[in-house]
Amino acid sequence: MSKILITSGPTREYLDPVRYLTNGSSGRMGAALAEAVLQQGMLPVIVSGPTAVAYPPDADVHWIETTEQMLERSLQLFTDCVGVIGAAAPCDFRPTAFSSQKITKPNDGGISFQFTNTPDILAALGKIKRSDQWSVAFALETGSGEAKALEKMRRKHCDFVVLNAPESIGRDEASFQIFDAMGERRIVFVGSKRVLAEKLLRLVCSP
Amino acid sequence: MSKILITSGPTREYLDPVRYLTNGSSGRMGAALAEAVLQQGMLPVIVSGPTAVAYPPDADVHWIETTEQMLERSLQLFTDCVGVIGAAAPCDFRPTAFSSQKITKPNDGGISFQFTNTPDILAALGKIKRSDQWSVAFALETGSGEAKALEKMRRKHCDFVVLNAPESIGRDEASFQIFDAMGERRIVFVGSKRVLAEKLLRLVCSP
Repeated sequence: MSKILITSGPTREYLDPVRYLTNGSSGRMGAALAEAVLQQGMLPVIVSGPTAVAYPPDADVHWIETTEQMLERSLQLFTDCVGVIGAAAPCDFRPTAFSSQKITKPNDGGISFQFTNTPDILAALGKIKRSDQWSVAFALETGSGEAKALEKMRRKHCDFVVLNAPESIGRDEASFQIFDAMGERRIVFVGSKRVLAEKLLRLVCSP
Repeated sequence: MSKILITSGPTREYLDPVRYLTNGSSGRMGAALAEAVLQQGMLPVIVSGPTAVAYPPDADVHWIETTEQMLERSLQLFTDCVGVIGAAAPCDFRPTAFSSQKITKPNDGGISFQFTNTPDILAALGKIKRSDQWSVAFALETGSGEAKALEKMRRKHCDFVVLNAPESIGRDEASFQIFDAMGERRIVFVGSKRVLAEKLLRLVCSP
């Protein structure tokens, strides 16, 4: 049975044992993609950050917390998959230092933290991608975002990019545009993540 | 019907439209307290940050996102309540600046953010607390934490403080110690948040 790797949900980057940086990604896009993959008779292999979403019981789900863990697990699993869809919203930054003790609230009211880039999961997968594998990026951009989305797809050696807006975070309906590697706008769609998942899979899996 | 105010869950402090600082507070302690309050024939008034927890249907739930919003709503609601239990884990820091555009990943790999203290909700309620009202703080401390918990209770003008460890975040079982305003250890308990809630309420509501 063909396997498709799906990264899903947010990641967490801890400042101390209690506090972390994250985002509102619900994992709903990943769950919708997993359902569409199963419907096409393939197996969804999900690497997911912490989320309360219900993935299909037949999906192969791997839970992680940090971006580094998502990368490591995805690299292990990608080899056996026909392609990867990067539906996760990993934290782009992580605190440079982790404090093993809970950081005390400063008396003077100000505190500064240094952050460093987390590894780019799709870019890392793009580097080991064989010619019989494909990859799809999601770009969540404020503003029109088309140029940023195309740049992102090329930098990560992806075959398609799905552009959507921050308004879609945690919601079930959104507006999406899908571009192919030539930069051509192949799908413009307003509707549910489930229907988008079906459209995307048909596009990616068609010869 | 007597009302008890319960703050519950985490808060979120946004860096930009996508990213925020938060913690893993599940709201389970708040939900357990609400159930115990209902069982004693009183009405739980909950001010809650975003969480997937199921509060009792008969509770009066007010949803907020940021610490500032939790403070504002709690100040409005406290006047009509006999007491407040601060079971929430509000973010202690918020980014000094909010970027209305999604912050771009820096090319050189490093970025620094300035944070400032958020308002202290229980301390603010402590200032307007009448002599016929009471307040309970929760202290989540790494290490032994007793001195920090007692200092926290006094600074916030609380009548009791519940000390627990970060291990209890998001879990249903934990170990707790409850101290009164004199610094006396009144309850030492290992068990479920639900049983702790009952013990705490009996202690607080006893004449």
